[in-house]
Amino acid sequence: MPDSDRPATPASRRSFIRHGAVAAVALPAVVSTLGCRDTKASATPVTAAKPAAPPPPTQRQKADQMDAMHEKGVKAFPAKTEGKGNQLLEPRMERGVKVYDLTAEEIQWEVEPGRKVKAWAYNGQVPGPQIRVREGDRIRVNLTNNLPESTAIHFHGLELPNDQDGVPFITQPPVKPGEPYTYEFTVPNAGSHMYHSHHNAATQVGLGLLGAFIVDPKRPRPAHKADLDYVMVLNDGSHGYTLNGKGFPATEPIVCPQGQTVRIRFMNEGMMIHPMHLHGMHMTVIAKDGWDQPMPWKCDTLNIAPGERWDVLVRATNPGTWAFHCHILPHAESEHGMFGMVTALVVQPAAV
Amino acid sequence: MPDSDRPATPASRRSFIRHGAVAAVALPAVVSTLGCRDTKASATPVTAAKPAAPPPPTQRQKADQMDAMHEKGVKAFPAKTEGKGNQLLEPRMERGVKVYDLTAEEIQWEVEPGRKVKAWAYNGQVPGPQIRVREGDRIRVNLTNNLPESTAIHFHGLELPNDQDGVPFITQPPVKPGEPYTYEFTVPNAGSHMYHSHHNAATQVGLGLLGAFIVDPKRPRPAHKADLDYVMVLNDGSHGYTLNGKGFPATEPIVCPQGQTVRIRFMNEGMMIHPMHLHGMHMTVIAKDGWDQPMPWKCDTLNIAPGERWDVLVRATNPGTWAFHCHILPHAESEHGMFGMVTALVVQPAAV
Amino acid sequence: MPDSDRPATPASRRSFIRHGAVAAVALPAVVSTLGCRDTKASATPVTAAKPAAPPPPTQRQKADQMDAMHEKGVKAFPAKTEGKGNQLLEPRMERGVKVYDLTAEEIQWEVEPGRKVKAWAYNGQVPGPQIRVREGDRIRVNLTNNLPESTAIHFHGLELPNDQDGVPFITQPPVKPGEPYTYEFTVPNAGSHMYHSHHNAATQVGLGLLGAFIVDPKRPRPAHKADLDYVMVLNDGSHGYTLNGKGFPATEPIVCPQGQTVRIRFMNEGMMIHPMHLHGMHMTVIAKDGWDQPMPWKCDTLNIAPGERWDVLVRATNPGTWAFHCHILPHAESEHGMFGMVTALVVQPAAV
Repeated sequence: MPDSDRPATPASRRSFIRHGAVAAVALPAVVSTLGCRDTKASATPVTAAKPAAPPPPTQRQKADQMDAMHEKGVKAFPAKTEGKGNQLLEPRMERGVKVYDLTAEEIQWEVEPGRKVKAWAYNGQVPGPQIRVREGDRIRVNLTNNLPESTAIHFHGLELPNDQDGVPFITQPPVKPGEPYTYEFTVPNAGSHMYHSHHNAATQVGLGLLGAFIVDPKRPRPAHKADLDYVMVLNDGSHGYTLNGKGFPATEPIVCPQGQTVRIRFMNEGMMIHPMHLHGMHMTVIAKDGWDQPMPWKCDTLNIAPGERWDVLVRATNPGTWAFHCHILPHAESEHGMFGMVTALVVQPAAV
Repeated sequence: MPDSDRPATPASRRSFIRHGAVAAVALPAVVSTLGCRDTKASATPVTAAKPAAPPPPTQRQKADQMDAMHEKGVKAFPAKTEGKGNQLLEPRMERGVKVYDLTAEEIQWEVEPGRKVKAWAYNGQVPGPQIRVREGDRIRVNLTNNLPESTAIHFHGLELPNDQDGVPFITQPPVKPGEPYTYEFTVPNAGSHMYHSHHNAATQVGLGLLGAFIVDPKRPRPAHKADLDYVMVLNDGSHGYTLNGKGFPATEPIVCPQGQTVRIRFMNEGMMIHPMHLHGMHMTVIAKDGWDQPMPWKCDTLNIAPGERWDVLVRATNPGTWAFHCHILPHAESEHGMFGMVTALVVQPAAV
Repeated sequence: MPDSDRPATPASRRSFIRHGAVAAVALPAVVSTLGCRDTKASATPVTAAKPAAPPPPTQRQKADQMDAMHEKGVKAFPAKTEGKGNQLLEPRMERGVKVYDLTAEEIQWEVEPGRKVKAWAYNGQVPGPQIRVREGDRIRVNLTNNLPESTAIHFHGLELPNDQDGVPFITQPPVKPGEPYTYEFTVPNAGSHMYHSHHNAATQVGLGLLGAFIVDPKRPRPAHKADLDYVMVLNDGSHGYTLNGKGFPATEPIVCPQGQTVRIRFMNEGMMIHPMHLHGMHMTVIAKDGWDQPMPWKCDTLNIAPGERWDVLVRATNPGTWAFHCHILPHAESEHGMFGMVTALVVQPAAV
């Protein structure tokens, strides 16, 4: 795989904090003094001999309390959680065929620190493992259904022979609980595609049965050359607002040295639009649903509708830690601070 | 009308089943054994002398029951219902003027087999009859209002003289119950347009007062030549999620011989976006709101917002029955199977 | 500032009525007779000695009553309200720096005649005052926070140095109640941008902490030359559906002599998409988020997602008063008539 196609190295917390420090600011020492105040306790008076009620918080104290919650979220980013989705799945080769094994099963998935939800996942990941092949590859996908209901896989965006399309009762029988099913095909069109359940799909995809299916072209376009390649799957099902299966502060920052180019592949597996807004730099839109746009165009807020994939290039020219979030604000921030569909693009300054 | 402009022949059930058979698969004989189980009855024990309670359904039986519901829907497609919307309305000629008579009235409309709803319709159809004219035609529309409230027709997308624009109290008085009103104009700009109520419109359009208004250009673009021309009106008002006034399985498949080209004209008359996803082939987007896009572009999921019209070409290269649906999954599938905004593109294989 | 860049002259009521009269129609004298009927009162029978109940209203009377409400709204347009947002803010010059003072504070804001809401506003305006600068200008923004909670300003779309990006705890500390904060930078990229709170933003932006930030290019494109330049900020927060902070009939018509060209800069500061539909003429889309589209394209309904800005040109060729509204109909009309996201483009006929 050429360098330009390698998936973005996930940023360790250490590297994030080190490089993100470019944006560090002197903060008032609010948290240390307020961190130990239990606002709930102080609001619940003890029933016995009434002591003098504590004075109500001043406006400034209330503002400080709110800010402390906001700061706590930012400082926790990127927060550690159990499980990581969208990991590259290496195939095994069988007589020239790339073979991928996918097991669908119920798991517990940690969306944010301490918040675990029921998920239906491929190979224990939400999103499922990333499948990455090349145009013309012969591939086989062995699905094992360990879910309590039937399922099937639709390869969303791939122009497959009809009997590999994954729609129960139209192109195949449903895959019953406990049973296996095999898909096999020659990979047709290049681009950023997806795989997901197409049976009881409003429920099954919402619970996590989805993943990225990237097809590298036989002849890559030089103009699309990127140093990092990042997949961002958006979802808004029963797990809340997530990027690659996690909500802020457990989302993953994209870390990129100044001067390099990142290719971001947005994929919406949810039920709502999500206009993703990048601070500090613009995005150059190069492809829609895996098809090159006739001419690239620029924006800083890209509206991604359910089922759509959009590929953009970002030239990381502007050093710093840049907020990157859905601009439907209630998907990104509450009175308690940022949450959900928020991450950051961290542009590491070039050495001086 | 040249062949390339003729509206798509609606597929009879017979032809659908014959040609759709390309995708037929061997299905386990689930329905015949499970069809007679009344799950409700078995859940309601008889109060008299208690017989041995039937064993609770196994996981597999529950999956089979769900699958049977899903299969039933697919097998019923395209289901017969009373009434068909969007039928081409032939004008009568009066001294060189094409005259169209539209009567708005309350009817009962069958959205899916057995589900009848109150509708407000033009000429008893939802969507109203399709008006199809040519750039430069002189036309007259005689509206008769048999509704219990006033109404008016706005020709959405047509650049008409102001007094023909159909907005009560701005360009005309409202058309009172029982009264007639006449619009007359020379058809200006070509493209995929619409006509609908512009009075108490959130209610009236939601109830069905809408239709397609197609204007063929004087000089058609050779690159836009198509073998079939299909109008797909999306709605999400009081009738639920519908394509051309019907919900799956009563929606109409688009049937096209392999190798031919279909032009699809999407029109959103609802209140929500609907990203329409075609399986198996891509769409080439050629026009927006009746205006040619400067360069065509490709996608498999096209986001259509309220009031928008998008024209696409699909080269029917891939034989089979292909799901074609809104990718907001709760608009297309529930635990009981597919419903609402789902249809199919049936590509009939070329003779061998 | 060249003529082509000057902001649209707000239309006085008088000029609107004078020029809008092109579309005037003879209306039945419904309002005068029905205006004094109190339907609520007649539906609440007096409990004492029962007089003969008034006959129930006929269908025609009910239609007339509804129409009277609709007419009342249209006739009131453009209705006077207290306060006007989006007014051009003139800077003061300090040693070559353009200085803007912004004070954030709680005010009462009249959205429609008689409906006052709590707003958080910059300089007492919703949207905040329009900042309009030129690429390369050095500017300073002095923020004073008179709100009860902390805040910060993000310059949405501007590619600033990281420490001017306005995201608390990532690029700066929050600006506490009662405290000042200063931003200073050289204006980078041209285009239609915005400024708004990026702290507790779902609440603060919804309450009105937002404004337009227009950057004129150093070298304007001749093809983008316009006679009028109009900013339209869409919002759907706690003030309801608004255009530039007002709901119909208090929205502002765009008034333009026939033959001239208007540039409209749509900006969505809300949480929902708004497909804006112009009657009578099309829009030519020239820029997205301040970046030129590679080739202009035409439409009559433009879908604007939260955080997006779209620039269009309208050639005012078609004389008359043209409805201009969000095509999500429940954002624009109810049984009581038009409201919310409705305005008009008034094309004044050329002298004969």
